[in-house]
Amino acid sequence: MSVSPFAEHTTRLTRSLINALVSEHDDAALASRVREIAADLSAAAEDPSVVEIRDPMRPRSRFRLDLTPASSARNPIAPPLEIRHRVRGAAEDDGTAESYADVVLPLQYQGPPGRVHGGIVALMLDQVLGDAAHASGLPPAFTRELTLTYDAGTPLNSTVRVSGRISRIEGRKRFMEGEITADGVVTARARGLWISPREQSAPASSRS
Amino acid sequence: MSVSPFAEHTTRLTRSLINALVSEHDDAALASRVREIAADLSAAAEDPSVVEIRDPMRPRSRFRLDLTPASSARNPIAPPLEIRHRVRGAAEDDGTAESYADVVLPLQYQGPPGRVHGGIVALMLDQVLGDAAHASGLPPAFTRELTLTYDAGTPLNSTVRVSGRISRIEGRKRFMEGEITADGVVTARARGLWISPREQSAPASSRS
Repeated sequence: MSVSPFAEHTTRLTRSLINALVSEHDDAALASRVREIAADLSAAAEDPSVVEIRDPMRPRSRFRLDLTPASSARNPIAPPLEIRHRVRGAAEDDGTAESYADVVLPLQYQGPPGRVHGGIVALMLDQVLGDAAHASGLPPAFTRELTLTYDAGTPLNSTVRVSGRISRIEGRKRFMEGEITADGVVTARARGLWISPREQSAPASSRS
Repeated sequence: MSVSPFAEHTTRLTRSLINALVSEHDDAALASRVREIAADLSAAAEDPSVVEIRDPMRPRSRFRLDLTPASSARNPIAPPLEIRHRVRGAAEDDGTAESYADVVLPLQYQGPPGRVHGGIVALMLDQVLGDAAHASGLPPAFTRELTLTYDAGTPLNSTVRVSGRISRIEGRKRFMEGEITADGVVTARARGLWISPREQSAPASSRS
């Protein structure tokens, strides 16, 4: 199920509102931005059917209806992660399926000054590793353990890449690994264990 | 620096807007809620100085201006974590300073159906452990490693408790631990390592 242009437009306006709240610490300046955004929200809600947006998100999510605070095009909490899939190292013939997303994080995701909050780093890596754990039509699996290592600050306001892949599979266990890079330098690493539930009576061919 | 009633009111309205976006999948129903919320935003922005709110958040943050997506009263991304401090086990004379927050998470924080997203679990535990790492006026420290163990689903829409404390200190290293409980049952555990930077020329008595 795709996200309607009206819902995605409203999500983008809500992201602007969130950004105004953390950027404008003077009530008069904040009020001025709130008035503008509220007018845009009202205008779009007058007739949702005529709303058009340029360049809609293409999350290519493996989930039918993504509402998550990590990657949904209709959840303004989510860093706008457009997860893509590729085969890594194919030239060397050891192709590993990888999930990745390039993302720019504005001020509302800040922890230490100028840097992404460590919990948002965790949120993005959890989502991308979870996506990669479902590569090649593998059955549903859930996070059992996730370890984040913070090597350096992940910068706000510039493109960073979040990547994840299966390291190895043992029965129902999938060992995952991934990292965030900024300008090619690793800022954070993740290792995780995803486990699929024991076989149920009905085949678990899709994840709702 | 505290958050103005107008900013906190706008944050609450923005949370409602986020909730509408993930709850209303029919454009007409969503538009109806957007119109109402936009009208409330416009009304408040007409004269920010007269806005009053009941029961403002009291995050008691150790940071002067909390803008973080984990606990700020002016960041609508943040689960509304009001972090508090207490001494645990004082009766047995082994009092350990603990940071904790009780929080109810609505639909915009969902991962699997009815459960909090694993990345949001990580975000909340990172914030509460980070707060606890600064107990008793200890100098600034940053997350080096964080391990989450997911024992069970953390429920949406009911009160859960996020707690954290120092496990031990070795020089510049602080080993942290914490958990989330729902109805007294542990749903997720965290262990982490926070490290304070080497002494600088100026004393690091506050964290900006």
